[in-house]
Amino acid sequence: MTSTTPLLTTKEVATLESLPLDAGGELRQVKVGYETYGRMNAARDNVVLICHFFSGTSHAAGKYHPDDTQSGWWDAVIGPSKAIDTDRWFVVAMDVLGCIRTDAPHGVTTSPASLNPATGRPYGPELPPLTIADSVRAQRMVLDQLGVGRLAAVAGPSLGGMQALEWAIGRPDEVDRAIVAVSLAEFQAREMGLYRAMQDAIMLDPAFMGGYYDPQHPPVLGLGLAAKLMAILGSGREAMRAVPGRSWADSKRDPRRDAEAAWGVETWLDQAADAKVQTCDANAWLAMLRTNMRWDLAADHGSLEAAMARIQARVLLLPGSGDELVHGPSYHDPMAAALASAGVEHAVCPLPPYNGHLAAIQDIATAADAIRTCLERPLLVTR
Amino acid sequence: MTSTTPLLTTKEVATLESLPLDAGGELRQVKVGYETYGRMNAARDNVVLICHFFSGTSHAAGKYHPDDTQSGWWDAVIGPSKAIDTDRWFVVAMDVLGCIRTDAPHGVTTSPASLNPATGRPYGPELPPLTIADSVRAQRMVLDQLGVGRLAAVAGPSLGGMQALEWAIGRPDEVDRAIVAVSLAEFQAREMGLYRAMQDAIMLDPAFMGGYYDPQHPPVLGLGLAAKLMAILGSGREAMRAVPGRSWADSKRDPRRDAEAAWGVETWLDQAADAKVQTCDANAWLAMLRTNMRWDLAADHGSLEAAMARIQARVLLLPGSGDELVHGPSYHDPMAAALASAGVEHAVCPLPPYNGHLAAIQDIATAADAIRTCLERPLLVTR
Repeated sequence: MTSTTPLLTTKEVATLESLPLDAGGELRQVKVGYETYGRMNAARDNVVLICHFFSGTSHAAGKYHPDDTQSGWWDAVIGPSKAIDTDRWFVVAMDVLGCIRTDAPHGVTTSPASLNPATGRPYGPELPPLTIADSVRAQRMVLDQLGVGRLAAVAGPSLGGMQALEWAIGRPDEVDRAIVAVSLAEFQAREMGLYRAMQDAIMLDPAFMGGYYDPQHPPVLGLGLAAKLMAILGSGREAMRAVPGRSWADSKRDPRRDAEAAWGVETWLDQAADAKVQTCDANAWLAMLRTNMRWDLAADHGSLEAAMARIQARVLLLPGSGDELVHGPSYHDPMAAALASAGVEHAVCPLPPYNGHLAAIQDIATAADAIRTCLERPLLVTR
Repeated sequence: MTSTTPLLTTKEVATLESLPLDAGGELRQVKVGYETYGRMNAARDNVVLICHFFSGTSHAAGKYHPDDTQSGWWDAVIGPSKAIDTDRWFVVAMDVLGCIRTDAPHGVTTSPASLNPATGRPYGPELPPLTIADSVRAQRMVLDQLGVGRLAAVAGPSLGGMQALEWAIGRPDEVDRAIVAVSLAEFQAREMGLYRAMQDAIMLDPAFMGGYYDPQHPPVLGLGLAAKLMAILGSGREAMRAVPGRSWADSKRDPRRDAEAAWGVETWLDQAADAKVQTCDANAWLAMLRTNMRWDLAADHGSLEAAMARIQARVLLLPGSGDELVHGPSYHDPMAAALASAGVEHAVCPLPPYNGHLAAIQDIATAADAIRTCLERPLLVTR
């Protein structure tokens, strides 16, 4: 049934007593934030897992209060009668391990900003290196607590798409469908370099102090610079043209004549940086950069083809046709080719160019039909 | 006549007692570095001015010594029997004002790193804001000293192309041909933002100290980060694929398992940064970023069309077909359209995609025929 009232949700937090890590050892008393939309059916075969992007959280849909100004980031496709129809599917959105957010009610998942139960201080730079497979392992354990077995689908944009791939490749007999937007099998030199530049920016800030910064005085300038780079590179060229680039930040001061004056784009960048600085932890951002850089399906499975050949799920790829960060021809074409050569059922539906990488959030509604088809068309193989 | 011995050259330095600036006031005792190749003819109508890119200098061709490992940056097209044939043309390559280089024999032109004759200390952050028109004014004065009147051509890549445009538009009756590679009429929001991010990087370094750094301890980390961003964004996507991205920087340490280990691309970036840090001044880099950001032909002349309509020269545009910094469709297409609507004689010859923005240096030989045609075909209008 279609509902005209907004989908309402709350942030839930699961606790894992012990999580084994790829790096060796374990994390104790791990917290994982999640939200659910819709209801699990009696057969427990209607569960769709949603995974989030770099600076996102598990607030993928709905509102906490009817008067919230913003809904979750994939609200355009999650809800009653929407592409991921919550009248049919039980949707579970879950945080990535090391989620970089610290703002309430989002900052609940174990990350470098969390208190280490063994010391009572934040983990800071001492949290072991995390992988995307670590996150998927944690998500599996939380789903076990919720009584969920196999997943009808796992879906997400960017880092969320990597998690979807890790689910479908690492746990092929647990996933029926994988929806992978603006995502990748491994970072290549250009994007590795850009992520390393963001790392340098954070570490360059004198307030960073090797990661042992005063929580009241975090390295906001370094983190802000990293956020500016992400904002520019994530936005599409066309969207950037709508940014007030050459207008004057102060209408009375011409930056071409006045060395102290600024252009509109500088104000835009400062605002983009402020928004992230107020909601993200610098150590967590750093760790997340390295987690992303570690992601490498070919290294894990011998080759990209071997990785893709493990998949039993139906795959939907949603490349961004104007994506400059996860560039379609560099990143999605090899994945599509490997899926084809492995004989994996898959479809490709490009997102529009305007918003670049961010099209996977801002324009996800353009892929609604492709997502619905992926979810609702009968599976060829019944397991 | 074709010569098989290398073209040999020396760095010359001209002095201008006083240079009026767009910002108001004047600079005293301005030094401008230049080099010449070939000989001026009796009619003095064979002079080609070469202007350089952001981190370049007037060492555009030839060698200082026969055993130099490298030739000047446009040596592929400047020399006896080459596209800019020094048996026919008297080529003058000249530094931009504020040239960011400090290494011998390159660092000779007045910049923030130069001693202020009034104080005996480096100008540092106190050098007035410079414009590209200021550079062209200085170049005009140096050419006057050399006895050069009108220019048969002015040519350059990137920032050098902006200087060529400023010559052709600001001094239309002094320029017969303008060759403009990977260049632009104004920076747009995306590139303004990237340049602002480089500025932030330099200023974030605690060694920067508001620009009053110890010359023995300059802000090498901040400047290095700016250089890394320029290296990534200047290189083409295809060229970046040849960078050792995911290889291990240390063959014994796997960066996926070892939090202290690095990937090959990180070593590549460090080397790119070191090369710039050792040859460039941080205050000069900062000032050059703002000089670039100030460049705006439409603001100077009312509209891009009005600017281009001033041109009396034949124009050759060399956009980079893989250029991600000065993106052809964003930057060259509007210039070509404005030239066409103004009825200016012009041609467009795209450079190959592989090296991105840097194709204008590394692959300039692919445009040799177009450059030769631009220079040698009779002018339609004899003035």
